[in-house]
Amino acid sequence: MSYQTLEVTVADHVLTATMRRPARKNTLGDLSLEELHSALDEAECSSAIRALVLQGSDGVFSAGMDLEEASDELDDGGRAGRARFFRLLRRFSESRCLVVCAVDGRADGGGVGLVAACDFVFASERSRFALPEALWGLRPTSVLPFLVRRVGFQLAYTMTLSTLPIDARKAERAGLVDELAEPPYAALQRLLARVARLPPDSIASTKRALAPLSPIGADTEAAVLRELDELFASAQVQRTLAAYSGPDRRLPWER
Amino acid sequence: MSYQTLEVTVADHVLTATMRRPARKNTLGDLSLEELHSALDEAECSSAIRALVLQGSDGVFSAGMDLEEASDELDDGGRAGRARFFRLLRRFSESRCLVVCAVDGRADGGGVGLVAACDFVFASERSRFALPEALWGLRPTSVLPFLVRRVGFQLAYTMTLSTLPIDARKAERAGLVDELAEPPYAALQRLLARVARLPPDSIASTKRALAPLSPIGADTEAAVLRELDELFASAQVQRTLAAYSGPDRRLPWER
Amino acid sequence: MSYQTLEVTVADHVLTATMRRPARKNTLGDLSLEELHSALDEAECSSAIRALVLQGSDGVFSAGMDLEEASDELDDGGRAGRARFFRLLRRFSESRCLVVCAVDGRADGGGVGLVAACDFVFASERSRFALPEALWGLRPTSVLPFLVRRVGFQLAYTMTLSTLPIDARKAERAGLVDELAEPPYAALQRLLARVARLPPDSIASTKRALAPLSPIGADTEAAVLRELDELFASAQVQRTLAAYSGPDRRLPWER
Repeated sequence: MSYQTLEVTVADHVLTATMRRPARKNTLGDLSLEELHSALDEAECSSAIRALVLQGSDGVFSAGMDLEEASDELDDGGRAGRARFFRLLRRFSESRCLVVCAVDGRADGGGVGLVAACDFVFASERSRFALPEALWGLRPTSVLPFLVRRVGFQLAYTMTLSTLPIDARKAERAGLVDELAEPPYAALQRLLARVARLPPDSIASTKRALAPLSPIGADTEAAVLRELDELFASAQVQRTLAAYSGPDRRLPWER
Repeated sequence: MSYQTLEVTVADHVLTATMRRPARKNTLGDLSLEELHSALDEAECSSAIRALVLQGSDGVFSAGMDLEEASDELDDGGRAGRARFFRLLRRFSESRCLVVCAVDGRADGGGVGLVAACDFVFASERSRFALPEALWGLRPTSVLPFLVRRVGFQLAYTMTLSTLPIDARKAERAGLVDELAEPPYAALQRLLARVARLPPDSIASTKRALAPLSPIGADTEAAVLRELDELFASAQVQRTLAAYSGPDRRLPWER
Repeated sequence: MSYQTLEVTVADHVLTATMRRPARKNTLGDLSLEELHSALDEAECSSAIRALVLQGSDGVFSAGMDLEEASDELDDGGRAGRARFFRLLRRFSESRCLVVCAVDGRADGGGVGLVAACDFVFASERSRFALPEALWGLRPTSVLPFLVRRVGFQLAYTMTLSTLPIDARKAERAGLVDELAEPPYAALQRLLARVARLPPDSIASTKRALAPLSPIGADTEAAVLRELDELFASAQVQRTLAAYSGPDRRLPWER
């Protein structure tokens, strides 16, 4: 398979997908999302692969949703892209592979969603995590069910309300990050050594068995997509995205 | 507006309400609760105001419910005061203002409720938080839904069961406190600078949108008030409060 | 009462039950579970006793379920033992005594369940906690409701999925451990001094009142036992346990 937004390598039972779209800060546009799904397909199809490791590049994990693209897609509503994103998060939480995020640098909005939905998170000290959606009149609707499941209600609420970043240490203390570490990740090797000892379908069956303790199912998906449809259809958001897609790339707080 | 239990100042888009009733350790009696509601009304009515900051004085944030007053009000059951308190906590979690508690010193019982229900909490190192209700044969029924939402079940359970205080560091690690800091709060300025960039109704609409992820609604309110009615109607609590309201102010554990 | 797997002492309103079955790493077989129930009966029957302290010995708190015994009991399904274990955890969370675990060393599987279900947990620095069930094709089904209630979904999920131990510091930060301490536990004395001041039925009534905030009831018990029945009836688990009960005690990852 060939990828345009990702660099994909396979070694030692691990498929590593590196997001490489520096000019767009690894934002998650239609193509990126499609390729992330493909990388997960590739990992899941090979029984030799036990883990998908997702990382960014050049000090950026992912700046989240591609708002440039979203502002270009106001006509068709952009619903397909949002559905593809939420579906990716659900797939992380159901995959037969261990899904690992290795963060070094910024993770914003949907980037925090990737982190929240995966199984295990490494982050370097310089990493930081933010939900800037409210600045755009939006909300991190897709991210919240996974984030609340991972860190509880309050931090998800504070991050959403304030739009301010939290640093790697705070993220680690809150459980958004499992381990503060730099590559190569020693803990990843321990983790993989353990996974190698598990019965073949263990990861997927464990995920299935634990999901009811904090369910994120088809009804959540429907509610999330409905709320996002409403938000993107609002006059305020349409104006904000139109101004941003204009020639002077006006940011919403430059009113 | 003039206040008897509060000192209210407005500056830089912030209404600061300082509880000043040192002889009663800033307990929350009928008048205090009425004035806290009025201060919130005042903040919400002015579009220039973006945050309500609530603080105590003289090393006491608030010692919680006014049990002297409660023991004087056993005739009418004290239900109105309890409803007013729970309503205040709900208003914090729905307000169009950012609601901030700045704790320096003791916060007990209902004082912990104010902290748990607000949006952002600063606390000095010497602060400490306790739920002493069980010593009186009571329970922190109004506080618990907000406390569980903020810190999870277990710490709320342990604090209720043990009645022992937790210190500021433990409170910060558990998420009851967002930041250990002394005034002036640099993070508050960052927070306000962000809020200034948000669309006008952003705080309230974010609160509305996130509430279903950990709902505290009219049914919770009804159940809380019913449970408190039962507790205050019990012979044991009536005896305990009567002894405390007597001339020698007998504490329940001085049996 | 005389015990074979426990050493039981009573002093200063505390019944201390020390698990002493070093050759079996304090695993929880039929006899151990019966005796733990008896120790709790004994504590609850004496109004002088306010707390049950449960501890291990020789650097082992408890290695969890007795898989040797389980593999010998495949005929009768071992359901009785599993029911007895879950019932013990529920009794901890309903008891009129304060239930305290004092961990020094390893706690695995069901041993983590004892810790998660009790009211207060001390642990020494060298303690560590693991859920190795997936290595056996099993799941920590009984432990999970209590563990999720104590530490939230994510850590319970990660421990189950990875089977890797967490150390005492991580456990303390996550809230699985309340205090890192060595005996004698100063905090236990403070806790007992407080409990002495509470009305007689305070512990049980507080537990009853708080349970609905994170319910683990008869329906949870039924679902847990049903899921375990299915797991133990699976051909894979039967083969794994048969191999382990064979003469060369083959471990499941030695395939």
